[in-house]
Amino acid sequence: MQAHSAGGSSLMRQEICQQPEALKATIDALLPRRDEVAALAGQTRTVLFIARGTSDNAAVYGSYLIQAHAGRLTSLAAPSIATTYKARIDLSGVLAVALSQSGRTEEIVETLIWAKDCGARTMAITNGGAGSPLAEAAEVAFVTEAGVEQAVPATKTFTCQLAALAVLGLGLGLGLGLGVTLDAGQLRAVPDAVSELLARPVDLEPILAKLAKVPGVVVSGRGMAYAAALELAIKLKEACYLHAMGLSYADLLHGPIAVVDAETPAIVVAADSGPTLAGTVDLARRVTGAGASAFGIGGGDALASACTAALAGPALPEWLAPIGLIVPGQLLTEALARRLGINPDQPRGLSKVTQTD
Amino acid sequence: MQAHSAGGSSLMRQEICQQPEALKATIDALLPRRDEVAALAGQTRTVLFIARGTSDNAAVYGSYLIQAHAGRLTSLAAPSIATTYKARIDLSGVLAVALSQSGRTEEIVETLIWAKDCGARTMAITNGGAGSPLAEAAEVAFVTEAGVEQAVPATKTFTCQLAALAVLGLGLGLGLGLGVTLDAGQLRAVPDAVSELLARPVDLEPILAKLAKVPGVVVSGRGMAYAAALELAIKLKEACYLHAMGLSYADLLHGPIAVVDAETPAIVVAADSGPTLAGTVDLARRVTGAGASAFGIGGGDALASACTAALAGPALPEWLAPIGLIVPGQLLTEALARRLGINPDQPRGLSKVTQTD
Repeated sequence: MQAHSAGGSSLMRQEICQQPEALKATIDALLPRRDEVAALAGQTRTVLFIARGTSDNAAVYGSYLIQAHAGRLTSLAAPSIATTYKARIDLSGVLAVALSQSGRTEEIVETLIWAKDCGARTMAITNGGAGSPLAEAAEVAFVTEAGVEQAVPATKTFTCQLAALAVLGLGLGLGLGLGVTLDAGQLRAVPDAVSELLARPVDLEPILAKLAKVPGVVVSGRGMAYAAALELAIKLKEACYLHAMGLSYADLLHGPIAVVDAETPAIVVAADSGPTLAGTVDLARRVTGAGASAFGIGGGDALASACTAALAGPALPEWLAPIGLIVPGQLLTEALARRLGINPDQPRGLSKVTQTD
Repeated sequence: MQAHSAGGSSLMRQEICQQPEALKATIDALLPRRDEVAALAGQTRTVLFIARGTSDNAAVYGSYLIQAHAGRLTSLAAPSIATTYKARIDLSGVLAVALSQSGRTEEIVETLIWAKDCGARTMAITNGGAGSPLAEAAEVAFVTEAGVEQAVPATKTFTCQLAALAVLGLGLGLGLGLGVTLDAGQLRAVPDAVSELLARPVDLEPILAKLAKVPGVVVSGRGMAYAAALELAIKLKEACYLHAMGLSYADLLHGPIAVVDAETPAIVVAADSGPTLAGTVDLARRVTGAGASAFGIGGGDALASACTAALAGPALPEWLAPIGLIVPGQLLTEALARRLGINPDQPRGLSKVTQTD
């Protein structure tokens, strides 16, 4: 089976395929505004991300990117600290960045307003438009240009959030003094890399056949790629009802590795280069050595040869790879949902705008 | 079946039952030292936790406690930022707190040393003794008095970590100006509360019968109790090979709630009081309303009456409840492992000291 000849016409699939244009529009709109980030962040030292669900997975990418390459400490907020405990924390010197696809999740809006009241500078990343409550609550709003997303499982809004976070990183001075080249030109090349990935024939069948028969799967990645692993785990849970456990490589080895067996394969995600690739290859070998299946996404020939089956990742430098690494996972999720008789556009129990208090 | 008449003599079970004395010894040793924390933290504003696996679940407790009640921002470190990306981050004004049961996990020791090199003040929480590499690397070392832990799944070392974090919180000024009473006397009452919980007859059977037949389970909690939910999820993964997905209440509703069904029950964990109880009760109702089983731990009559079956939690104020809330989960894990024919003391693929690069 080739993903592009599967005959599906789900909205989710259409939206997966719209990502090159969505990414291009988003990067074109936001890249010229990176100086606004620099100005906003000028008096701050720490970045506090505020998000839930898929947006929180995007925040994990932002967190690794900024800590590894922009020299700032980051933190992922627990919104209940603001909304339930109503705590007072001195957030002077903090840049609070809230992410929400809809820009209408009240808990996220409330937490950003709380952060401002606590002294933080504030920024929003949303596909909900400049008039959304989240954008209106922030000093700087990065509105992504993904267009309307109708399928409940977020795809193009997620990758556009990652692109917005890459712009945030550039605004904060990515790679300054670290001897690594991370520049706007590399970000501009992302839409074409995703387009090439989508145009390439992909054989999902060996992985689909296994995943359709098992109750659960471990999804793992390291460093930058960890965010793509977490996002694939949430996709498989929400659209395929699979017991998908997203775990970092190291946390997996601290106990949960016991769960991997003949009935519980692992999906391992890695960029084609970078300092986390070797460890990911070792993890795949450990999984297959234990008699379980390891399915690779990205990681080039090194990872593919260590895995039971593998899907190619994007031709992108490590810092931008997660934007492309999730794409084969999105295709896999959509195809698996249909094979399991689930409408990927409308999984049970979910709506497009999630409200939690 | 009553947990205490199950006839098991696993090391894990013995160590679960040693928790009152372990907690008392730990609290007696550490509580007098809370002024050392105050002195160490005097010039800092933010707390950075460094941990993996079970210790990382303890750090989640510390993170909620300090943010909700001590007015400081916290962050959970991604050790790969230090060990793999070798990033340079200005950590002046940061109190770095590393947790490791053994005190010998190289990645954690290396990350604490990195934090010191980046300008952080440093503290260790370990059961590995004052001579362990982690204790030696830190300016202040809180050595927990759990005694030797032989079973691979951590139990008493985890609850002693929580007690050490409560002392850390007291040293940082818990409840100052927040109108909530959180004091050392409440912490001193913890060993007796855990002892009472262990002495009470507990009927695990309805929950065991269901969990023995399903491949996976969602474990959820909010605020302080979230750490206990995460820890129960890791126990069920490592000792029972169950696909246990630990998720905060809000993250669960942002997608993964779709996974809950007749074959995938939810375990919901809450303190008997506090601002997160009502939401947890609502979650249990939502789960049972969808035709799935909800098993409660703690949460008093309110949660029990919303659940398919429930286990009583400790008589402790919300900020200390996680130390007792994990105990019924530990008993459940140990009993489920034996029912599934697994030796809980030595699950497959695991060793007591975990090394990740």
